[in-house]
Amino acid sequence: MIHKQVPIGVSARHIHLSEEHVEALFGAGYTLTEMKPLSQPGQYAANETVAVIGPKGEFAKVRILGPVRKRTQLEVSRTDAFALGVKPPLRESGNIAGSAGIKLQGPAGEVTIEEGVIVAARHIHFHTSDAERWNIEDKQRLRVRVGGDRGVVFENVVARVSDEFALDMHIDTDEANAAGIANGDTGEIID
Amino acid sequence: MIHKQVPIGVSARHIHLSEEHVEALFGAGYTLTEMKPLSQPGQYAANETVAVIGPKGEFAKVRILGPVRKRTQLEVSRTDAFALGVKPPLRESGNIAGSAGIKLQGPAGEVTIEEGVIVAARHIHFHTSDAERWNIEDKQRLRVRVGGDRGVVFENVVARVSDEFALDMHIDTDEANAAGIANGDTGEIID
Repeated sequence: MIHKQVPIGVSARHIHLSEEHVEALFGAGYTLTEMKPLSQPGQYAANETVAVIGPKGEFAKVRILGPVRKRTQLEVSRTDAFALGVKPPLRESGNIAGSAGIKLQGPAGEVTIEEGVIVAARHIHFHTSDAERWNIEDKQRLRVRVGGDRGVVFENVVARVSDEFALDMHIDTDEANAAGIANGDTGEIID
Repeated sequence: MIHKQVPIGVSARHIHLSEEHVEALFGAGYTLTEMKPLSQPGQYAANETVAVIGPKGEFAKVRILGPVRKRTQLEVSRTDAFALGVKPPLRESGNIAGSAGIKLQGPAGEVTIEEGVIVAARHIHFHTSDAERWNIEDKQRLRVRVGGDRGVVFENVVARVSDEFALDMHIDTDEANAAGIANGDTGEIID
């Protein structure tokens, strides 16, 4: 039997910005600067943060992940959503149509987005070679077990396969806390 | 096949107080007053709240659950623990030896407890008749599945059996958010 072990990365709340919104929040011609690289090639945590202001609460410093994307997307946990007072849907990254809106504030201005706030569906990035080796297809729903005192099997873990990805499972802070998981722990794909 | 369906109750952060600590926080001779009954017979949410003050953060109003117990016990989620700046262990209710401490503040005074702060292990209360019908023993570890977009199987769910219990599974807010569960949803015991 093959053990399909996957490293787990815990995603805290974060935001991806469009180029237009970077300029609106940080000033004309502004470009994000890299603080540290992320597990996915070419992706990075920026030095810059924005304030996120909901009807009930706010977070003063939400980390921006670069590079810029076509559309701005704020990813929060369900716990964060209650604190902000917004009701984001559970979505795969990039699927933001009809999702929640919110106000963003940067040093040079404010932007109110009508949609773009989501709770990210748990997922695994597979390099094409990992997926082939394990017979896993893009968009497949997987079950992943994490052991321990708070052992959990996560269902509906979305497989995302690309030559540009590195093997990594992404869950949010609620999921990590519920399962007693820290960054660098591993899960096992059980089907 | 028998379907062992269990209603799920989501426990927000809350505190059980000793009689001594009720008096220290609310005044000599003070007794808690009932706001509403809980699912377990004789247990209730009190009208009274206390402030809980950690090294990093605080919660101004933490609900007290009555009646008084032998020892004070604060139950928080892992998310709450990070916000407070404390490191409570995962424990079954009542097992507080060597757990985390914290400062409590009421209208009549303050108390600093040296231990009593825990993250509660997920568990199911069974009336003895439920447990007999389903062949479940006190202290048994169970697996419980909850379906949906964020479907999860919770492992290590502790069975607690008593004539004084009503059938109810208790999870905390991190676990509920991670699995997309609201109060009144049901889980299925799968072994």
